[in-house]
Amino acid sequence: MKTLLLIGMGAGDPEHITVQAINALNRVAVFFVLDKGQATEDLVRLRLEICERYIREPDYRVVQVSDPKRNNSTPSYTQGVEDWHEQRAEVFTNLIENQLGEGECGAFLLWGEPGLYDSTLRILDRVRANGCSGFDYQVIPGISSVQALAARHRVPLNDIGQPIRITTGRRLVAEDLDNVVVMLDANCAFQAFIDEDLDIYWGAYIGTSDEILIAGKLADVCEQIKKTREAARQRKGWIMDTYLLRRTH
Amino acid sequence: MKTLLLIGMGAGDPEHITVQAINALNRVAVFFVLDKGQATEDLVRLRLEICERYIREPDYRVVQVSDPKRNNSTPSYTQGVEDWHEQRAEVFTNLIENQLGEGECGAFLLWGEPGLYDSTLRILDRVRANGCSGFDYQVIPGISSVQALAARHRVPLNDIGQPIRITTGRRLVAEDLDNVVVMLDANCAFQAFIDEDLDIYWGAYIGTSDEILIAGKLADVCEQIKKTREAARQRKGWIMDTYLLRRTH
Repeated sequence: MKTLLLIGMGAGDPEHITVQAINALNRVAVFFVLDKGQATEDLVRLRLEICERYIREPDYRVVQVSDPKRNNSTPSYTQGVEDWHEQRAEVFTNLIENQLGEGECGAFLLWGEPGLYDSTLRILDRVRANGCSGFDYQVIPGISSVQALAARHRVPLNDIGQPIRITTGRRLVAEDLDNVVVMLDANCAFQAFIDEDLDIYWGAYIGTSDEILIAGKLADVCEQIKKTREAARQRKGWIMDTYLLRRTH
Repeated sequence: MKTLLLIGMGAGDPEHITVQAINALNRVAVFFVLDKGQATEDLVRLRLEICERYIREPDYRVVQVSDPKRNNSTPSYTQGVEDWHEQRAEVFTNLIENQLGEGECGAFLLWGEPGLYDSTLRILDRVRANGCSGFDYQVIPGISSVQALAARHRVPLNDIGQPIRITTGRRLVAEDLDNVVVMLDANCAFQAFIDEDLDIYWGAYIGTSDEILIAGKLADVCEQIKKTREAARQRKGWIMDTYLLRRTH
């Protein structure tokens, strides 16, 4: 039997890693790294730093493969993602069959939390559904950017006894505004709600030395966040940001 | 200046702790423990285990105080919670003023994630608003039971590109059923939706040696979960469970 570990490595700070994840890292013979283009250099560097810092006997291999490009021209967003997952499933199947020995343990080091807006688990389901079943797998949770954001701003994620919504920029709607965390928002979806009485807690590159935090009334800080965000994205070539929107009490 | 650390200690498995949290533990001179009655013995044991396992020079003090009881007879739920927070704020103020020396570091070790359905941050805001301001504080995120649940069941928390809702048993409504994680549900709120076509991923005492996991079509496993839950609650005297409900695809 082969084993695959999906290891959450936290939101950017190497100290976000859990003891469970460190113990998992030390079982791994092969790390699989998907090259995702632009953001790669920093992300690969963080992965390497984590491996170097926490693995006691560095006798592991690293196998890097190109991540298939998502076709954004597909009319249906979901269909586009499904097609992309199918391509990734083929890549994964190839890795498991040809790069992982019998009895060996392979791993994906995943940003943040493996259960939150990460496709690796879904792709492994597809790999198995496609007939590649000679492996077992485990998930090791990690600190998500949502939690890191709340911790750095020192705010609770929920109002007293109230629900929380976590959504994407694409899906942010007025009904969510009581209390919502937004991830993966390339278009500053918050600016559509500038006339509402909202507080925003925004953060980029949270937990890293590039961390930027801005909080305040949305109407007051909206432009500052947009400008700061764009300048940072230009400077680094990529940005990873998250924010909490909440009706002002 | 005095410092308070709110340290997330994970969902029950001592290996959920992060390196950041371990480093924080090692700065602490005084641990504050709120005695919450029934569940206390197990929770205090986990805290002690974490301290013993991860603190290199055990020269810390432990100060245990009784947590004020929440008055459940108050007509408004929110008002009941507000009153309770005010009482806790008085307890906290007393701890900070009388049990923590100048320049010392005190800490609360919190189950799961400090930002998620935990009142400590909110109570510290109140302590400061009440005029006790001679302290700084930091939040160290921790693995929540939501993440531990998803990891143990090996399911993503979200559908592709879709929002997630995290709510309480009290607040669970039909509009949430596409994809919702429920915490703090003493009354098995899921049973109201047994006629819907739903999958449930349920877990109790996740990450501990008492862990119980059940998953399946809600209609198929609803009774099993209710019986298992009640038997476990009787046996241990308390239960902490979480579940993900999702429309069957």
